[in-house]
Amino acid sequence: MSVAPNLLANAVRALSMDAVQAANSGHPGMPMGMADVATQLFAHYLKYDPKAPKWADRDRFVLSAGHGSMLIYALLHLTGYERPTIEDIRNFRQLGSPCAGHPENFELAGIEATTGPLGSGLATAVGMAIAERHLNAEFGDDLVDHRTWVIAGDGCLMEGVNHEAVGLAGHLKLGRLIVLWDDNRITIDGPTSLSTSEDVLARYAASGWQTLSCDGHDPADIARALEEAQADPRPSIVACKTIIGFGAPNKQGTSATHGSPLGHDEVAATRQVLNWMNEAFDLPQEVVEGWGKAGVRGKAVREAWEARLAASPHRAEFERRMVGDLPESFSLDAHLADLIANPQKVATRRASELALEAINAQLPETIGGSADLTGSNNTKTKSLKPLTAEDYSGRYIYYGIREFGMAAAMNGMALHGGVIPYGGTFLVFSDYCRPAIRLSALQRARVVYVMTHDSIGLGEDGPTHQPIEHLMSLRVMPNLDVYRPADVVETAECWALALEKKDGPSLLALSRQNLPQLRDNADENLSAKGAYRLRAAKAERKVILIASGSEVEIALGVADALEAEGVGADVVSMPCWSRFDAQPRAYRDEILPDVPSDQILRVSIEAGTTMGWERYTTPHGLRFGIDGFGASAPAPMLYDHFGLTAQKIAPKVLAALKGN
Amino acid sequence: MSVAPNLLANAVRALSMDAVQAANSGHPGMPMGMADVATQLFAHYLKYDPKAPKWADRDRFVLSAGHGSMLIYALLHLTGYERPTIEDIRNFRQLGSPCAGHPENFELAGIEATTGPLGSGLATAVGMAIAERHLNAEFGDDLVDHRTWVIAGDGCLMEGVNHEAVGLAGHLKLGRLIVLWDDNRITIDGPTSLSTSEDVLARYAASGWQTLSCDGHDPADIARALEEAQADPRPSIVACKTIIGFGAPNKQGTSATHGSPLGHDEVAATRQVLNWMNEAFDLPQEVVEGWGKAGVRGKAVREAWEARLAASPHRAEFERRMVGDLPESFSLDAHLADLIANPQKVATRRASELALEAINAQLPETIGGSADLTGSNNTKTKSLKPLTAEDYSGRYIYYGIREFGMAAAMNGMALHGGVIPYGGTFLVFSDYCRPAIRLSALQRARVVYVMTHDSIGLGEDGPTHQPIEHLMSLRVMPNLDVYRPADVVETAECWALALEKKDGPSLLALSRQNLPQLRDNADENLSAKGAYRLRAAKAERKVILIASGSEVEIALGVADALEAEGVGADVVSMPCWSRFDAQPRAYRDEILPDVPSDQILRVSIEAGTTMGWERYTTPHGLRFGIDGFGASAPAPMLYDHFGLTAQKIAPKVLAALKGN
Repeated sequence: MSVAPNLLANAVRALSMDAVQAANSGHPGMPMGMADVATQLFAHYLKYDPKAPKWADRDRFVLSAGHGSMLIYALLHLTGYERPTIEDIRNFRQLGSPCAGHPENFELAGIEATTGPLGSGLATAVGMAIAERHLNAEFGDDLVDHRTWVIAGDGCLMEGVNHEAVGLAGHLKLGRLIVLWDDNRITIDGPTSLSTSEDVLARYAASGWQTLSCDGHDPADIARALEEAQADPRPSIVACKTIIGFGAPNKQGTSATHGSPLGHDEVAATRQVLNWMNEAFDLPQEVVEGWGKAGVRGKAVREAWEARLAASPHRAEFERRMVGDLPESFSLDAHLADLIANPQKVATRRASELALEAINAQLPETIGGSADLTGSNNTKTKSLKPLTAEDYSGRYIYYGIREFGMAAAMNGMALHGGVIPYGGTFLVFSDYCRPAIRLSALQRARVVYVMTHDSIGLGEDGPTHQPIEHLMSLRVMPNLDVYRPADVVETAECWALALEKKDGPSLLALSRQNLPQLRDNADENLSAKGAYRLRAAKAERKVILIASGSEVEIALGVADALEAEGVGADVVSMPCWSRFDAQPRAYRDEILPDVPSDQILRVSIEAGTTMGWERYTTPHGLRFGIDGFGASAPAPMLYDHFGLTAQKIAPKVLAALKGN
Repeated sequence: MSVAPNLLANAVRALSMDAVQAANSGHPGMPMGMADVATQLFAHYLKYDPKAPKWADRDRFVLSAGHGSMLIYALLHLTGYERPTIEDIRNFRQLGSPCAGHPENFELAGIEATTGPLGSGLATAVGMAIAERHLNAEFGDDLVDHRTWVIAGDGCLMEGVNHEAVGLAGHLKLGRLIVLWDDNRITIDGPTSLSTSEDVLARYAASGWQTLSCDGHDPADIARALEEAQADPRPSIVACKTIIGFGAPNKQGTSATHGSPLGHDEVAATRQVLNWMNEAFDLPQEVVEGWGKAGVRGKAVREAWEARLAASPHRAEFERRMVGDLPESFSLDAHLADLIANPQKVATRRASELALEAINAQLPETIGGSADLTGSNNTKTKSLKPLTAEDYSGRYIYYGIREFGMAAAMNGMALHGGVIPYGGTFLVFSDYCRPAIRLSALQRARVVYVMTHDSIGLGEDGPTHQPIEHLMSLRVMPNLDVYRPADVVETAECWALALEKKDGPSLLALSRQNLPQLRDNADENLSAKGAYRLRAAKAERKVILIASGSEVEIALGVADALEAEGVGADVVSMPCWSRFDAQPRAYRDEILPDVPSDQILRVSIEAGTTMGWERYTTPHGLRFGIDGFGASAPAPMLYDHFGLTAQKIAPKVLAALKGN
């Protein structure tokens, strides 16, 4: 490299401060502070090729401190990615620009993960590093041999999920994971001493990490640290001692540079300090050339890899895996046929295990796991052996009591590609991993959440463990398909749908308690429509009963009681709201005819909050559910206590009909 | 104590294994493993009086490993609390028994916190320890001088929130906090080596804790460790080396004892090992007497404290604070009158700050804070100085980037009593602290969540920071009042309501952007009704527009446009769903008359998910909102982009009217 490193770094600084100033919004402090470190990384260490940004064996880079988004936008532009263009950067944070406020993986190649919610990026990177080692174990060094790099700030390290991520990475000895900590001792509120006294490196060391430090503004010292990080078999954290907003003469080193434009005067003063005399967004030719050289570093490496891939006997399978297509032969039909032939009365968590036996045997790409509830979530099928530091080829991860860390790692695996992660916990603890579930949805990551013990049906563990509001609170999350199957057949159907959805997460809410098999036919995946008529009224239809999961059985009992009184009642099983809402109007009207409630009364039954069910019952329908917290008792007593039995519901429906 | 310690401990073991066996459900392993440690604590160290369980200066004991609930039920019974009776324990986990599956603070005196969701108890205890030191600084050693003790398991320590709690406690040097870690190397999935390689004590030391170990089955060694823990000015963790299920000859030391009854044979075998020949629930007289002596230890201490309180000039104020009553003189009327006289166009986050200026000046019990967003959440009023390790009398806590830890600590403060905590973060990060918000609601803790940047109105930070589903997902949580005020007047009203609610949490969703003052009269707290008619239709009423927060202004614009077309439109401001739903039917019908949509069309406008609004609009009404993720751009452009402007909404309402 003939161009001085600090000139390259100053290009990052200039683009960052100028873009933030132009937008009058953004975070200049981090990009300016970490410019020297990032320049070393992108100019000398990171394995990537801007002309083939999705190359499977590239290093993964995650900007966990996502507010410093201009850092990655500047680097992608300077190293020669097709986007962002300089025009994109001029439009930083404007509608339609791929240079959004925080980096978004679906906007730009080169953005490996959507970041911003603090701590999540680093925890996601752990999953990428797991996927890399696992695929390496499957496909060998020739095809899979790369690193995962993270830039993280103090916020990423203070968040609770950091503890989970660090513990998991240390336990699994993910030596290909390197975290570059922007150790600038500043957070939004001021110096870190306001809120923490932690010896961060000692904590990382306690979980088996290599801990390093460097002067984050000294290229040689940065290089030394990166070399040491690469050489060690442990995951590494490098405390990069930096000055936030480096170069801004009056504001650097203070929280004033964190989340606001520097201001025109300070930008001008910074130009003087950096000796950067070009206009905003105008790059000196030597900078363009210097960064251009850095950007082509990976081309030969990538081409050599492509040659190896072309010659590999694993090529077809590797490419299928990385694209994320299921094998053409994949099917659950045999499993379903077996269920129809031999009906099963099992909990849907057990039904999920049965489906997984069929799935895991056909899909080598699945990686299961649980946050220390393996036996309860039924996530481990017989053939899966553990993925451990000693054997990365395993396909089952004991995540420990780390729900958020598990979910974030699953995001990383899905984003890395080549694997399809699923993981379990209790539905009530979806709250613990909710920030990562949201990022699954936002990042369009194929992650399957296996959430068991989905209602008061779990019984004696009581209100802390009984989800009430969780189903509804998850249904409102965009791009998340929430499934609550009613029996063993629907469970298999929902699993098939979850696997087929390449561009987003699915969540299966499963019962602890046994449920009868309700379906005697599986010729069509009826769950795919979100809701369907499980049983049609025999007498003249006056009622439509709508239920999900374990309450479908109750709805059938209510229908029996109503029919005995000469009142016809459809029973609609509704395993997935979002799929039903996506059906054509004609289908929805067929299932739920648009007639006044005095002609057909709509009734919902679900052992959770009733708020939200007005969507299908209308406010004039009836909603049976639970709007307070649960209680501790055997499950059948709780169903009776909360009035969720056919014996208690049917009379109320009849009374409502008479009232009309 | 004349009775051998192990006999006392065996009483805990016997009650635990017998109650779990009788219920055929529960967790015997932890109580049997930690019985010796807990016996030392309750027999010699913990300051409490079973006959005055709410005595303000008692030590607080939190069973963070809440699944081991039989431990605390046994201890409360044995030491002489009025409840649980032996009959209550016989009915462990049955409907109506106060001995629920997990300990619930509202069921039994002596249960200081509802626990079970792992990690939360310890993080809650941090808040109790903060409240203790703060009140000590205010009221002196004579009135406030106690400790907070925690029993925690491996799960509590692996959860992310543990990192946040440990960091906060270490930073604040909470030397009165002592954690007894049930270091049994077993989790549900098996040995801890399946999922973690962490040196736990090294991690705690990295945050400034004293770290100790003891043989958890050796009374003398336990006593030594507890003495050392008490003597040190730092918070302490004691690794109590225990055997899970201690005494069960064939199952101890394995995960088989964690969450299932031992089984009749193993229970019988354990009786032999423990030399415990009494029938289930039958206690030997020497045990009753031995534990009885332990239980009266605190009586004299409590009486001496009561004498000091009686003589204290601070008595009335201290008692008011601990009961949780607001001062009789407390009022925001002057603040509201000032707003009516001098209208303010401010963001509701700023409106919250203005209200807090009036509140904090009148209520010495408020303790504010933010998870590193002080300047954005507007949570720090001018007079509040920081609460620090050097000065616990401060009333503002820099929580750091620890949303979950903050929320859990606030729960602990509220449960401790004497203070009213409020704390801020961005609404989108309510996901990070959602498990603790749920526990605020379940535990009936008066915590006020100040959640700013409550919609796309935050602008350029983009979809990672723009709450879409959060309002709705919080509204479905039982016992949580979610407020979204529309202007500076409503904000003050909502604050008053939040403070008046002694038995549960409130959450204020506040705008980043400025909003005009809409109210010109504050004679009545209209927000108390949850929704009210802000402006009545001028022309014949054909439409009711319902909106919250920043969208009320838009609704007024829509109403203007409709009235200009001769279409009468009410505008209803709905700051709080749960309060509206609690109004008498007559009031609700007055605001939202129960007439078909072809007579009056109901329209909701809210910059978040529309799912759920059918509750008020009916499915036949219109719902304007955002059902996908947001975008990165200046706020006004986003409102236009997502169709949330009067110019875009009014024509759609008119079209719908014509369609009728």
